[in-house]
Amino acid sequence: MSTAAEGPASYSRTPRTTPTRYKDRATWEQEAIHDILDSAYICHLGFVADGAPVVLPTIYARVGSRLYVHGSTGSRPLRGASGEQGMPVCITVTLVDALVLTKSAFNHSVNFRSVVAHGTAYQVTDPEELDVALAALVDHAVPGRSAEVRPANPKELAATAVIRLELDEVSAKTRNDGADDDPADLDLPYWAGLIPVTTVHGTPEPGEHTTVPLPAHLSAYPR
Amino acid sequence: MSTAAEGPASYSRTPRTTPTRYKDRATWEQEAIHDILDSAYICHLGFVADGAPVVLPTIYARVGSRLYVHGSTGSRPLRGASGEQGMPVCITVTLVDALVLTKSAFNHSVNFRSVVAHGTAYQVTDPEELDVALAALVDHAVPGRSAEVRPANPKELAATAVIRLELDEVSAKTRNDGADDDPADLDLPYWAGLIPVTTVHGTPEPGEHTTVPLPAHLSAYPR
Repeated sequence: MSTAAEGPASYSRTPRTTPTRYKDRATWEQEAIHDILDSAYICHLGFVADGAPVVLPTIYARVGSRLYVHGSTGSRPLRGASGEQGMPVCITVTLVDALVLTKSAFNHSVNFRSVVAHGTAYQVTDPEELDVALAALVDHAVPGRSAEVRPANPKELAATAVIRLELDEVSAKTRNDGADDDPADLDLPYWAGLIPVTTVHGTPEPGEHTTVPLPAHLSAYPR
Repeated sequence: MSTAAEGPASYSRTPRTTPTRYKDRATWEQEAIHDILDSAYICHLGFVADGAPVVLPTIYARVGSRLYVHGSTGSRPLRGASGEQGMPVCITVTLVDALVLTKSAFNHSVNFRSVVAHGTAYQVTDPEELDVALAALVDHAVPGRSAEVRPANPKELAATAVIRLELDEVSAKTRNDGADDDPADLDLPYWAGLIPVTTVHGTPEPGEHTTVPLPAHLSAYPR
């Protein structure tokens, strides 16, 4: 991570976080990257197993410039990260904001925000860090939640594994623009524009064993 | 792909499509897998570059038991798939349906539908297949769209690359259930239940060069 005197705090820029196309859509600024990471809670975790790529969806949390990813001690990625050498991973977070329809098939696009983080992940073994990480994993999806549940007991803690990735080689990419047609296509009699896409969190639905009113951390939800 | 006489058509089951945990959430049935693939249009494409995993979001389409993934001829995954030997990939599609809040931190979960497809991807080079694939990529996100746009010209076709993955080693995983608390936790005075999550496609917003009324393929949208 570097904090250049001349600009906002940024993560390091490396060949694999430098896009070969649409370079103006990329940023390495911490604030922009953290904003995207804090707006989602599902990531796609990539790792290599027997030489082949594996991509699994899972939940994550950000604490400063660390990502924590949740799993069970029995799952494949968590076993891979449990050794001293760690496990090379790629963690990708994507938010879709609009479908972009143009007059030509070729210029169709998507408005999106995404973060791609590369690095070596390690299993969290320090009990204090594990406590912080587990609370963050619960609170990242539902802020305030970890204070109003039964905390994990020793047996549950033993069955939970969390991996840590230090954010270092990470970039964001965003497109936030209208239909971008070629000048020669502008007068074609086709419809062009945006279909906005939003993720909506509905009214919380209590389960049959819930006897308490909706707590404040949920009545304020969705964010 | 196998079609066992005793059950619905299913994809082959292999060690890496057989989960080590929550086995009852997995299925290899074609219909269930195709339903999930047809309900989304963003996938996360995983591949290996210089020994390390890379996960990128992109759009895809399903045609029968093939997936087509879109890219530019200059992008890294597309270059990797352009050789005769193809490129090992993992293509993952995830839909989130609810956050599942339980009385214990440990039992928190997510209702979701996901598909993970493993295999070797190849660049589509046959012009007829490329036409089919490009139309499918436009129509998968917005059904009917490819008939009401200017088709790609030769220069655009040359700049577009599509990779194909035959669905073979593929499975789906779903959770569609309520808060699943331990019996000993049921009377704890905490709120448990679901926060429903939906992806909403809003009213299409015409661009400044759109002079035609909203066409039928868009007034019927969202699906």
